Amino acid sequence: MENMIKEHVRDIPDFPKPGIVFKDITPLLKDAEVLRKIVEAFAERYRAMKPHAIVGIESRGFLFGVPLAQALGIGFVPARKQGKLPYKTIGISYDLEYGQATIEMHVDAVNKGERVVVIDDLLATGGTAGAACALVQKCGGSVVECAFVVELGFLHGRDQLKRTPVYSLANYV
Amino acid sequence: MENMIKEHVRDIPDFPKPGIVFKDITPLLKDAEVLRKIVEAFAERYRAMKPHAIVGIESRGFLFGVPLAQALGIGFVPARKQGKLPYKTIGISYDLEYGQATIEMHVDAVNKGERVVVIDDLLATGGTAGAACALVQKCGGSVVECAFVVELGFLHGRDQLKRTPVYSLANYV
Repeated sequence: MENMIKEHVRDIPDFPKPGIVFKDITPLLKDAEVLRKIVEAFAERYRAMKPHAIVGIESRGFLFGVPLAQALGIGFVPARKQGKLPYKTIGISYDLEYGQATIEMHVDAVNKGERVVVIDDLLATGGTAGAACALVQKCGGSVVECAFVVELGFLHGRDQLKRTPVYSLANYV
Repeated sequence: MENMIKEHVRDIPDFPKPGIVFKDITPLLKDAEVLRKIVEAFAERYRAMKPHAIVGIESRGFLFGVPLAQALGIGFVPARKQGKLPYKTIGISYDLEYGQATIEMHVDAVNKGERVVVIDDLLATGGTAGAACALVQKCGGSVVECAFVVELGFLHGRDQLKRTPVYSLANYV
């Protein structure tokens, strides 16, 4: 699985800015069989944990989170950037390298006592995923695990998420 | 199908600005069975047309496009706002009510001669979907059909897309 993913992830030097090597996951989506295997790997892991919903982080978390939710027969909840969700929202602000960002969910998206898996395509420093987990908790829910297709282990995002289990299918250590 | 969708779409008055009634599709995602029926309705229609890929428009087109691509066993291609895709891109600019926007795909996302379905959650005036279709054609591909979960028929978006077949599951005429 890890090799298959790494063979399909494309390194883009200097994106979005000089010195950063961006992991382009779009080739994983172009190959239906590769995507199917990724979704099934997550589904196998989470089937026994019986989460109530999958929370996907905008926007690449949508790409993997929706088919995972469908594979498990559970609902999908989008966590989005500030101002994107139309109904009443609850939000969490978190620090970026420069400035702040806010991530939101609808107030009725995760209910008290519900257990969810939070998913994104990639774990970097863990700022956004940590905020998404805090948001689930603010709604009275709990995060079974944070799931990522790709983890940039050398950025130690797991440390940011220390109270939440982290699972990734491919790790760049 | 149409009634089921309309029962799960939530009207949000004055979003994103006064006078607009926004169609909130997030309840369709929260109910796994409803989403499964939507995906299957699209899959049934497109199975016989044998498209090479599904092109999903950022970001709510991702939510329906990825499970549709998986149901058909074909690849998914994201069409994104300017500056979001990391690899070499091809873009099309189009007019908004005020100003312009640009939509992009990776240059290798759709190949010459490929037939695709372009999907988004909602057809309003058709500006973005029209640009996405033009983008596919600029890559040498063709659009079998533009697919939407919800159509705001009273905005006449079909007229904007007149050279491309349009299909929607629920229409507000």
